[in-house]
Amino acid sequence: MQGKTEKVTPKVLSGFMELLPAEQILFNKMLDVIKQSYELFGFIPLNTPIIERAEVLLAKGGEETDRQIYRLTKGESELALRFDLTVPLARYVAQHYSDLQFPFRRYHIGKVYRGERTQRGRYREFYQCDIDIVGNGKLSIINDAEIPSVIYETFRRLGFESFTIRINNRKIFNGFFYSLGINEQATNVLRVIDKIDKVGLEEVQKELFDLGLITETVKKIIAFINIKGDNTEIINQLRNIGINNELFVEGINELESVVGMINRFGVPEANFSIDLTIARGLDYYTGTVYETVLNDYSSIGSVCSGGRYDNLAECYTDKEFPGVGISIGFTRLFSRLLEARVIKPSNSTPAQVMVIPLDNQLDKAIDIASKLRRNGISTFVYLENAKPPKMFKTADRLKIPFAVIIGGNEAAENLLSLKNMETNEQKKITVEQAIEVINKKRE
Amino acid sequence: MQGKTEKVTPKVLSGFMELLPAEQILFNKMLDVIKQSYELFGFIPLNTPIIERAEVLLAKGGEETDRQIYRLTKGESELALRFDLTVPLARYVAQHYSDLQFPFRRYHIGKVYRGERTQRGRYREFYQCDIDIVGNGKLSIINDAEIPSVIYETFRRLGFESFTIRINNRKIFNGFFYSLGINEQATNVLRVIDKIDKVGLEEVQKELFDLGLITETVKKIIAFINIKGDNTEIINQLRNIGINNELFVEGINELESVVGMINRFGVPEANFSIDLTIARGLDYYTGTVYETVLNDYSSIGSVCSGGRYDNLAECYTDKEFPGVGISIGFTRLFSRLLEARVIKPSNSTPAQVMVIPLDNQLDKAIDIASKLRRNGISTFVYLENAKPPKMFKTADRLKIPFAVIIGGNEAAENLLSLKNMETNEQKKITVEQAIEVINKKRE
Repeated sequence: MQGKTEKVTPKVLSGFMELLPAEQILFNKMLDVIKQSYELFGFIPLNTPIIERAEVLLAKGGEETDRQIYRLTKGESELALRFDLTVPLARYVAQHYSDLQFPFRRYHIGKVYRGERTQRGRYREFYQCDIDIVGNGKLSIINDAEIPSVIYETFRRLGFESFTIRINNRKIFNGFFYSLGINEQATNVLRVIDKIDKVGLEEVQKELFDLGLITETVKKIIAFINIKGDNTEIINQLRNIGINNELFVEGINELESVVGMINRFGVPEANFSIDLTIARGLDYYTGTVYETVLNDYSSIGSVCSGGRYDNLAECYTDKEFPGVGISIGFTRLFSRLLEARVIKPSNSTPAQVMVIPLDNQLDKAIDIASKLRRNGISTFVYLENAKPPKMFKTADRLKIPFAVIIGGNEAAENLLSLKNMETNEQKKITVEQAIEVINKKRE
Repeated sequence: MQGKTEKVTPKVLSGFMELLPAEQILFNKMLDVIKQSYELFGFIPLNTPIIERAEVLLAKGGEETDRQIYRLTKGESELALRFDLTVPLARYVAQHYSDLQFPFRRYHIGKVYRGERTQRGRYREFYQCDIDIVGNGKLSIINDAEIPSVIYETFRRLGFESFTIRINNRKIFNGFFYSLGINEQATNVLRVIDKIDKVGLEEVQKELFDLGLITETVKKIIAFINIKGDNTEIINQLRNIGINNELFVEGINELESVVGMINRFGVPEANFSIDLTIARGLDYYTGTVYETVLNDYSSIGSVCSGGRYDNLAECYTDKEFPGVGISIGFTRLFSRLLEARVIKPSNSTPAQVMVIPLDNQLDKAIDIASKLRRNGISTFVYLENAKPPKMFKTADRLKIPFAVIIGGNEAAENLLSLKNMETNEQKKITVEQAIEVINKKRE
């Protein structure tokens, strides 16, 4: 009935990840691990619309955001796609706070959209995995110490051992800059400081002078950058740097108490440390900030970042909601780990068994499949008319662990042949015995 | 630092569902059940981009689709949001077929977008939960009999007992219309037939004449509509209606063999039946078609529909991929079930325990929480400075099943008080004993 028509080339847009089955199964498995970790700490799942009014999403503004956001036309009010999960959280809390219990612990795993120029490892559609603890009016600093334990648990469960949660407090920076009278230049100074690993101390010093800073100020900044040691040593050096600005001291106190409590939440000393160079953007975080680095793959950059903010929903309400949270940019992380062969896809199907009917034993094969499924075993029956080698090849390529073969002989004895597809071992047993063997392998 | 600014009203767009925590948890739980059912049958999870090139999504065309689709502007090629999961599947198979194993069994649970005029129970952003079995060149009719067993398993696991999977075959309709020479008027005739439950036989007859059909034809149509009985009786009446059109007979044969096999896949007779009135759109399905009705809530309409198609990816490739699949429009189903109080939200958090520190026993409380979490128990520690009644009220409102109270007395004895929040029963026990009690309740 349909004539040959012009074909449209089947392809996805650049910057949009699409996976083949084996990779997708691994991707989902890792997302599940993150979800389970978040739930272990009592975070509540949320799911907000991907499309919101542009006015809502852009309430905070920002040139970068405005440039990257996807806008929609639909003959209605101006719409846009969310570019993170924090703005929707802010809107959600402002809208629904009277129905929520505080502190409100929520997680959100979902896709967000940013029309960035595409480059290696950057995506325009990607998953974020966020947790936030939001207080109504106030929120204890102890929450800032619990967050690293969620990061720790999550990355342990994802199979990592050697990673470092780096912690800082924005009040230290801010107080430091205020006390030097250079808070107006904070952005530029931070940009210069940020280069230290690339260009070295001397060049940084030169660039600070280029900004027009006086010798005394540059000296203090260099002294600040040079603070090193373990967590206790860093706190002590900060206290002795000769700055008495109130905010600065408050930052030190907060950092000290957070770092002092993290261990109690079960995070080993080896997995966290103070890092005074972490800033995480200038206008959002107001206290504790976090970054997380996989020590063996530090080129990936921070795999989990976040921090404390004073006022989550100020664009939508006069009520104050301070909070602390983190985010894993999972799509990029997954693609980098895959590329580095840190993770490897295996099965291409959730099926644990393929039931292969021989000698026209299809009815029997379907009976066995139903029985396996009733016992919770994911089962694929080969229903097509094909030669046995083709059926086995399909099972093999899908990396299905077991094949159940039911031919005339097996049917006559009311048995089946269970084949371990990895070892090629095959034995004639009852369906009940097969269920036992398959379940044992699953554990 | 930030002055008071104009506030943006925090609200979501109409036609977009957003849930409070307890509803969201129930929503996720039900989606999980669907996912597990689909995986039990060896379907592979896919996840394609929500944004695709408009050219790809609109390849098949259709006025309705064109009107409803969300278009995007981003200074690139024309983009749009997917409006179903079938078109992306077609594109995926056409693009990746050389990397896939056939028959390709995939499931996809994801959001789709349709800018419909909003009305009760209709959403512009909603979840579809799809499965499809796609063959390379051909696909056995037995797959059409397996699909109802997936529907059956899924709705059973969702807690339903009384539902009917209604089955038809489009070839019967098509062959019937061809043989009467009215295939050009098929759309109009079907529209009239569809009204039978509302307007009755006489009015239908009148409207058929109004379409200009001759008496002989109207008689045949009425005879066709009047076919009733159990599955075997319907098949017999179809065979005896006096139409020998090849397509018509092929349709009867297919329907007979599908219905004859469904039972073997474990679906009880009570849960499926032939229904010759099911058409499911005119230009897509070519063989078996399904609808599913919850017998006690038939006003919801079909909760799971689908069918067999000859050529999935014809817009993208010359290769032929026949397939069969179904879809659950979950967002609408959820909202209708909630409205009818068929389902009821309960817990507002995944947390099974709230640890409540009294007498400054925060350190001890954190230790206990860490231990509970290491044992897989979702735990919320109350870290805020609050009076005990407020803490208990929070636990109560979140419907957390247990509270662990750790005060000076408990700490001194190295015990804790475990309170069952439902029964208010409280006892002083060790943390190990508490873990046992909580895990027992979970099972």
